[in-house]
This record gives sequence, structure tokens and C-alpha cells, in this order.
Amino acid sequence: MNDIDIEQLKGIANQLRIHSIAATTAAGSGHPTSCCSAADVVAALFFGHMRFDPKNPHYYNNDRFVLSKGHAAPLLYAAWGETGLFPVDDLLKLRQLGSDLEGHPTPRLPFADVATGSLGQGLGVGVGMALCARLDKLDYRTYVLMGDGECAEGAVWEAASLAGINKLNNLVAIVDVNRLGQSQETAFGHDLNVYKERFEAFGWRTEEIDGHDLEEIAEVLAAVGLGEQPLVILAKTLKGAGISFIQDKDGWHGKPLSKEESVRAIAELQPSAKSGIGQHIPAPTQLPAPKNEAPASYPATTYKMGDLVATREAFGNALLRIGTADSRVVALDGDTKNSTFSEKFFKKFPERFCECFIAEQNMVGVATGYSTRGKVPFASTFACFLTRAYDQIRVAGISMANIKLAGSHVGVSIGEDGPSQMGLEDLAMMRAVVGSTVLYPSDAVCAEKLMDEMTRHKGICFLRTSRPKTPVLYNNDESFPIGGAKVLRQAANDKVTVVAAGVTLYEALKAADALKAAGTGITVIDAYSIKPLGRDVILAAAQKTNNLVLTVEDHYSEGGLGDAVAGELSSEGIRVSKLAVRELPHSGKAEELMARYGIDSNAIINKVKSL
Amino acid sequence: MNDIDIEQLKGIANQLRIHSIAATTAAGSGHPTSCCSAADVVAALFFGHMRFDPKNPHYYNNDRFVLSKGHAAPLLYAAWGETGLFPVDDLLKLRQLGSDLEGHPTPRLPFADVATGSLGQGLGVGVGMALCARLDKLDYRTYVLMGDGECAEGAVWEAASLAGINKLNNLVAIVDVNRLGQSQETAFGHDLNVYKERFEAFGWRTEEIDGHDLEEIAEVLAAVGLGEQPLVILAKTLKGAGISFIQDKDGWHGKPLSKEESVRAIAELQPSAKSGIGQHIPAPTQLPAPKNEAPASYPATTYKMGDLVATREAFGNALLRIGTADSRVVALDGDTKNSTFSEKFFKKFPERFCECFIAEQNMVGVATGYSTRGKVPFASTFACFLTRAYDQIRVAGISMANIKLAGSHVGVSIGEDGPSQMGLEDLAMMRAVVGSTVLYPSDAVCAEKLMDEMTRHKGICFLRTSRPKTPVLYNNDESFPIGGAKVLRQAANDKVTVVAAGVTLYEALKAADALKAAGTGITVIDAYSIKPLGRDVILAAAQKTNNLVLTVEDHYSEGGLGDAVAGELSSEGIRVSKLAVRELPHSGKAEELMARYGIDSNAIINKVKSL
Repeated sequence: MNDIDIEQLKGIANQLRIHSIAATTAAGSGHPTSCCSAADVVAALFFGHMRFDPKNPHYYNNDRFVLSKGHAAPLLYAAWGETGLFPVDDLLKLRQLGSDLEGHPTPRLPFADVATGSLGQGLGVGVGMALCARLDKLDYRTYVLMGDGECAEGAVWEAASLAGINKLNNLVAIVDVNRLGQSQETAFGHDLNVYKERFEAFGWRTEEIDGHDLEEIAEVLAAVGLGEQPLVILAKTLKGAGISFIQDKDGWHGKPLSKEESVRAIAELQPSAKSGIGQHIPAPTQLPAPKNEAPASYPATTYKMGDLVATREAFGNALLRIGTADSRVVALDGDTKNSTFSEKFFKKFPERFCECFIAEQNMVGVATGYSTRGKVPFASTFACFLTRAYDQIRVAGISMANIKLAGSHVGVSIGEDGPSQMGLEDLAMMRAVVGSTVLYPSDAVCAEKLMDEMTRHKGICFLRTSRPKTPVLYNNDESFPIGGAKVLRQAANDKVTVVAAGVTLYEALKAADALKAAGTGITVIDAYSIKPLGRDVILAAAQKTNNLVLTVEDHYSEGGLGDAVAGELSSEGIRVSKLAVRELPHSGKAEELMARYGIDSNAIINKVKSL
Repeated sequence: MNDIDIEQLKGIANQLRIHSIAATTAAGSGHPTSCCSAADVVAALFFGHMRFDPKNPHYYNNDRFVLSKGHAAPLLYAAWGETGLFPVDDLLKLRQLGSDLEGHPTPRLPFADVATGSLGQGLGVGVGMALCARLDKLDYRTYVLMGDGECAEGAVWEAASLAGINKLNNLVAIVDVNRLGQSQETAFGHDLNVYKERFEAFGWRTEEIDGHDLEEIAEVLAAVGLGEQPLVILAKTLKGAGISFIQDKDGWHGKPLSKEESVRAIAELQPSAKSGIGQHIPAPTQLPAPKNEAPASYPATTYKMGDLVATREAFGNALLRIGTADSRVVALDGDTKNSTFSEKFFKKFPERFCECFIAEQNMVGVATGYSTRGKVPFASTFACFLTRAYDQIRVAGISMANIKLAGSHVGVSIGEDGPSQMGLEDLAMMRAVVGSTVLYPSDAVCAEKLMDEMTRHKGICFLRTSRPKTPVLYNNDESFPIGGAKVLRQAANDKVTVVAAGVTLYEALKAADALKAAGTGITVIDAYSIKPLGRDVILAAAQKTNNLVLTVEDHYSEGGLGDAVAGELSSEGIRVSKLAVRELPHSGKAEELMARYGIDSNAIINKVKSL
């Protein structure tokens, strides 16, 4: 334990408890008892075991620490305060608008790689970090501190399974088994054996300890990294440990101590508290830095106008093309790689591919983990199955994670597989993610160029791709900036501006031809950038067509392209009508379904006539 | 096995294989090999073991069968065809628009209680059914047929855990371990022991069998219901079993046989195939029918105008009030019952309450299971954590399930806990669910009345509730029909119609007072029904205010109230401007955050002035 003796660690642990109690009482809210149960483990990890540069939390070979039980944020903040990263007096600004010491950690803080607080997500992120250490030939370890309550989340077992399969012996989970959930005792109380059997069945080495016995903690930490398996330390603890009148009592979740209670608690802890030993933290090993630079450019695409290529296949082509030039690119899939075409990348770069099996939540968590280490992860599956990971995607947004999602098989145009396989809510879902970019190419060139844009853009991006083959519409030198839109048909005296993307763009073009033949002109716009929307292009076109816009989308009518256009242009006096899927679709042929649900060229023609 | 001998079952199994092959070849798509691996198990379950009335698939004491591996739909259809429910010739209409024998099962079919096809969801539904059998004192059993690949989904382990905790010995899972996933071999191949250890660690009794040996199958089925634990049968099978030139080969997922291949395959199977023995199916036990009738009315509410009551607490009050009058009501929560106030119901009706612990996916799955049995389940947690269950909610929409969701702690107005706990995308998410109803009360009376409406309405409903206490605005005799809206302030010469809901409604009322004092009138509308929107009320008001509408919402600007109003009214020439949260929020006091993110009364006043 690097010159730190056990008595000193006990002192630090109590100091962390004092900080946690004082900060939450000052804030008037928070989870002091959830901090106290884990204080001894955190003291042992931060002050003598983990190898990191406390002045540079982002250093590439620092051991990583993920506080999956994010509500114990004050404990995390106290630990970093005690390393000397910032003045410990700042801890009393907890939860204030002017301080980044928020109620739950976010990466606004340099030592929080990801936002936590939605339980059960930390382990998946940790798996991504641990896989990345291996890829980058670094020896940092990843520690994930979890609560016992959150082990009810399936995402934990998705992550545990993948860690076991990949024999991630550089990954250490610690479960703070304090017995008490928010509203009652957990299902298993202090029965560590349940957790032990589960983790062992998922391929882990397990250690059971008294989480308040620093000698036991130090002993199991000394054996971290032994063997081939990931390690979970099951720590039996008491919620509120160290506060005699509160510890192990139900009804104390998410509740600060009153001023009087905090004085009493701190008086109990103060005599044995110790501070200021950040200088004893072991330094990380010096190893070559990973090469995480973007190339100056990506190779060009070589499609021919009119070639039939599904945008999902163009995604696969782009992943391989970009990944060949850019070593930051990693890819993940959920056992759909032969349908999403990510297998093209997998075959060439198996070491940069993570098969996540059918576990989409974990796929997004692992991608987030990779992104925190400087990689550009592309995670793909059917768009509808990304709904499975919506909470992980939401939290990736809060984490400002640089992840890229590709959802294939969207809309009724997938045809015979039926509604359970149709992505019809993905635009609504992805638009509502904070900071997200939502892209929807119609042809292969656009799909490839948007992949270039996604790789260059920092932040969470979503590419919506289609199952059917569609003709190439654009030249290889066309550019598709995020936030743009393309005017494909426009003439003086056009009556309506039709805004479409994906399969419906081809329907709009068909409708334009038919209407033109019948003497009615319409402007047709390819809205390949849904968020940010190509607002100015659409607005300018609309103003030339009597302020009339018709949107057509292979998506439900709520929250998709139509709402995006109406939401942005209605205030400008543009009248937006929508064609979209408005009922539960059936299995059938793609063209039959597009007709039945009113998003094909005939539906457009009829609607234009009625406008 | 009720007079059915093993040879007969072998014959039926091969007949089911023949149907599955013929139907998918006729359709030109589908998953025949995934049918063949499970054909022996399904034959044994349907023709001699399960107790059900094949002429009345909905009969309340029938054993339930959930095909969690929904892509084996042709096998399910073949089994029901062979029971005599419909002519087996119909099987050749598989995947056609004119037939309800869709690519994956939906409840358009009388024998599919839920839609399946998004993997890993069947077991949670089965847990709900099994819990319901216990509640209704019925002896039907629930059988869930799963694939091995889908056992990677965390939702499976959430369900397995809850089944183990509740000792559901009326629940039987069968895992068809055919080794091969969609794009490659699963992580564990034919190593049944991995699954055995996992299920045992989660509290299950396990049996390992050769899934093509009907004697072994019959033997383990004969012991169903023994002991206190749920039972999982781990069946080692071959994908494509029975087709000599395909079985156990990779690359055959989701692929029909060519016409020639199907002829060859059927020629192999035909000699031992048998049909038409539906009459040997054991009848269900005769037991009293559960009382699942709605009462004529619900008790009245008794709030006083001006009382301060959070809508989340009103939800809890309503749950208890309605649940006291209506025995169909059951409640579920994810260890947040003391925050969502569902604990009021839990304390009075523990037997109708399911604590799902921190596992929201399973909570929604279990709720769906209850709903298939005639109950009206209310599942509650923080709105942001419902994102965890978005795929389950999406599939509940496809299942036309009668479930009720309540999401509390929405928006920046929760304050100090920070962004990971703020529901800011729930309206977008819930609006995009097919057939959903989305409600957002501002005061306690409205929340309670909307709970009455939700209980009466058949279909998936979402109630969005707030953390802060807000004054009661309405009399107890006010009614709030779904699809309505309330005009709270209106005068001649009003300049703008402000549409708000929840905490922002109070800000709009404040703004109206301040603007009135300054000589500017605004119309204020309570848009308590977001989907369907109170369109006509808003449109009529807007037309009296120069077609100007301003929406204000404690939600991200995408897919919420503003987009709903713009999406519906823009085509009528209404100009809709939006105030909404447009960046990643921070921790802080509720009022500080509402000011900072531009959704408080000052923001409304400034925006109204600028319009």
C-alpha cells in the first residue's frame, strides 16, 4: 500500500465521511449515508492503491475510477479534494448553480469521465475503458464502484457477461453492499453469496470482504490483476457507516443530516479523521501514448450515379474506408453485423471491433467507455433496437460522449419482418438527446459523406439508414455539411416545398415528375440533416412556394422530420403539413406498406393537390 | 403425456418443421432454421403437456405460451394451425399484408398475448403472467420459449431475478440453445453449463436436456411445478434440426430455403410427419373466473383550491383512491415508491403491488404481462428512468397493451439532483409510441382526474408528474377528458396564446398577471393532454390572438409540447414559437434553473414582448 498505513487510511476515510456529511447538510439535499458506506473502499483506492496523477486527471495511463453509484458524488468530490486537485472548501458549494460539484457527477468535472446517476451504467463504461487499455497497450486499470441496489439492472449483467467473455483482468468492480435501497431493503440484504454466485456464473473472480475493514480491503486490492478474470470485490457495508445514530437504518436514503445531526456526526468522526496525504498516491507507469489523432482527410468515395446501394451498406463501406485511414475508429455491433454491414470493418480490423452480442444497452455503454479514451466508436444495430439503450444514449448525451450510432432497417420500408423490427420512433428519440446530431442519408454518397462528418464532429451522432437499395443520387464530390439540406427540384411557380429523406425522398422525386407532367411544380428537398435541421435552405424554398411545406417520412408522425420542420419554421409563418406513419403497421411488401400508410408518391401527389 | 406417445410427438414435430419451411419459402423470407431447432419442444408443449382450450386461446385459465424468440413465428403459427384453430393452408399466407400471420407475432392473432421479436422481452412478460395467476388464484402455468442468443439481454436477468425472488414455480422458461446467433456463434455455443450456473445463481431450478429427444423433453415436462423455484429447461438443439444439409451450419439465420431446397428438406421430413391430433390437448382446470370488471365510477377527489400538492403525490393519492374501488388495478415500482408516492397503494394493497427493484425494463415487461390477464397495471418511477425501458414500452405499444406509466421528477424543476435525474425527453419518447396517450397535469385535481381517464381508457398511457408542490387550480368537479385543453385566461384583444403544462403553466399565469398589469393581454391554455392534443381548443384560441402561439415546457425543445403544437397547428397557419430547455442543464435551485434555461415567467414576458 505504498507507505500508507492502515490507521492513516482509516483517518482519510473518516475525513471523506465528514466532507460528505458537511457538504450535503450545507446543500440541504444529497445522499450522505450512501457516501459513508463506501468511504473506506474509496479511501483505500484513492490513497495508496490506484496509480494516477492527481494533478492531471485526464492523463492517458491513469487508472480510471467510475462512480457507478453516482448519488455518492460527495464522496468522489471529497476524495479528489483530498488529493489536492481543488480546495476542499469548495466541497461546501455542492449542488449550487455556480459550482460543477453537481448532485450527480458529470464530465464538467475533469475527473468524471462520464455522467453517472442513472444506476447500472458504470460497469458497461468500465468494460469499454478496459478493452481500450488492451487495444492501446496501456496498463491502467479500471475500477467501477457500484451499489448493491443497482445490481438489479440488467445492464450490469450485460456488462459482466462481456467482461467475462473477454477475460478483462484489468477491470475491477466493487459492490458496496450496504443492504438498503431507496425505498426498502434490497432483495438480498447482506447475503453476499447471491452476488458471489452471480458474478462467478458470469465469469468473474470474486472476493468477499468487510467493507469497513481496511486491512481486508488492502489485502484484496493487493491481489488485483491476478489471474485471467475480471475481479469483483463484494464489500459488506453499513449505510451511514460511522454515524452511530444512523448507520444501517432504513429511511435514510437521499436525506441530508440536519445541522444538529451533522454536528453530532462530525463530532463522532473528527477524532480519528486525517487529511492531506495526496502526495502518497502511486504514479502511473510511463508507456507510449496512444495515437489518437485524426487524419487530415479520408479517402474519396467511388459510386456511380444510379447504382443501387442501400444506405446501410454504404455505412458499412464508409466504416471500413474511414477506419482504414483513422486508427481512432472502433466499431461495435449487437449480433447484427451481417445486416448492418459493420462486418466489413470487423473482417479487416477484428482487434478494433467489439462484438457485444444481443445487448444493446451495454453496446452503447462500452462505446461511451471507448470514447472517453480518445477513440471514435461506431455502434450499429437495427434502429428499433437502439430504443433498448435509450437511457444509455441519454446519459451519453449528458456525458458529452463522442459516440456514433447507426440504426438500420428503419420504417415500414423494411417490409415483411413486421412492426417489431421497424425503426419508427428513432428520430423522435434521438432528436431529444441533448447535444445530439441526427442524420438521415438517402443515397450511398450522402451516407458516406455524413460518416466523414460524424467522424470529424465531436459529440453524439446518429445515422439513420434504410434497408432497401436506392439509386445513387449524388456525385462523389458533393459535400453534405451537418445542418445542410439539398434542393433537388426547384422551379419558378412551384406550389409546395416537399421535404423528405431516405426512402420517401425517392417517392417525392417520383411525385414531382408525375405532378410536373400534370402541370404542377413542386420543390423537393433532401433533409439529410434532421438535427440541426437545414433550416435556412428549407425556409428559403418554402417562402418561394406560398409558405407551403409538405414533409414525408417513414417514421411515426410524432417527433420526427415533420415535427422538426414545423417546430422550426412555424414561427416564420410557414404552413407545414405532414405525411407520416400514423398507425401500427403490418407485415407486407415495402411498396404495399408505403402505400397503405400514406407515404408513397401517390400519397404525396394527393396531398399536394389538396394543398 | 395424456395418451400421446413419443412417436406421435416426433411426427408432429416434423409436421411443424414442414409447415415452417414451406411457409417461409412461400414468403421468400423468414427464419425456418430457428423454427426447426425448437420444433420438438413446441410439439411436446402444445400436444399433450400444456393445458388449454385450443378453440378459445383467451380462456382465463389456459396455460400461457410466450414465444420470446419471436422470429420463430412460423413454428408458433404451425402449432396453432395443427391444434385446429385455423386451416393449416393459411400458413402459406405468412408475411402477406392480407394475413395476420406476420413476420413476428402480434396480438392481432388471438393466441399471441404480446408482440415478440425484440429479443429478451418474453421472460418479463411471463413473470407478470405468473404473478397474476397467483393473484387470481388460478393454476395456469406460463411457458416462455427463449433463444440462447437473447440470454445476452440484461432484461432476461432482470426477469430471472424477480422470478427467483418471488419463487414463481408456475413459470417455466425453455432456452432453445441452438448455438448459432444471427451473425456468428453465440459466446457460449453448446456449453449448457454457463446457462445452468447463471439461472441457478438467479434462483431457478434447471434441467439440461437434448432438445431433440422427445423422451427427455417429456420427462422434464412431467416434473414441471415441483419445488418452489421457477424452472428453466436448457435444451441443446441444432439450428435447422431435421434438415440434413443445413442443420448446425452457420450462415442460415433469417434465410428461407429455396424452392428446391425446401422440396428436398420436406422430402426428408415427410415420411415421419404426423398431423391432426389437436383433440389430445389436456383441458385447463375449471376455477372461478377472476373479477376483472371496471366499477361504474371512482370516488371523488377532495382538494381545496390553493392547497399545495405535487402532482406526483396526487398520482399516489389517485392510485390508492382508484385502486380501492377497482380490483383490476395493480401497481409496480422500481424502488422509488417513496418518491413517486406509489407506496400509498403498496401499504394498503401489498398483494397487488410488485416491487420490481431497480430494473425498469422488467417493470414494464411485468406490467405488460399483468395487462394481458385483464389487470390495469400502473408502473411508476422517475420519468428519466422510463427511458431505460423504451424498447419494452415500444413493444407494449405494438402489443396494444393496456399499461399505465407514471413518470415523476420531470424537467429542470427537480433542481439540485442534476441532469441525470431530470426527465427532459420523456414527452418525445412517449409521443412516438404507437397508440399512446400522453398526459401532463399541472395540479392535483387534474392529475387525479387524468388517472380516472387513464384507468378507463384502453391502451398505453403516460402521466408526466412534477416534483415541486403546486397550488390546486381546479375544482373537484372539473372534468379533464383525454384530448382536451383548458383555457385559463382569455380576453378580447389578447396578443398571444401561451400554451403550457406542469410547472410552466404557473409561470404562464404569473406572466399573464404581469403583462396584464403592463397593458398586454395573453391567453393562457393548460395543455394537459399532449397526445392527443387539445387541438381544437388551442386552434380556436390562437385564431383570436393573431394566429400567434407561444409554447413553454420543462422539456427539451425537440419532440415535446412545442413540436406537438407546431406539428398540429402549423398547417392551419398558426405561428408557433417555443420556449424549452435547449442545453444540458446544471444542478441548482428549481427557480434558478427555470430562469437560466428560459422557461420562467420572465422568459415568457420577454418572448411575448418580442412577438
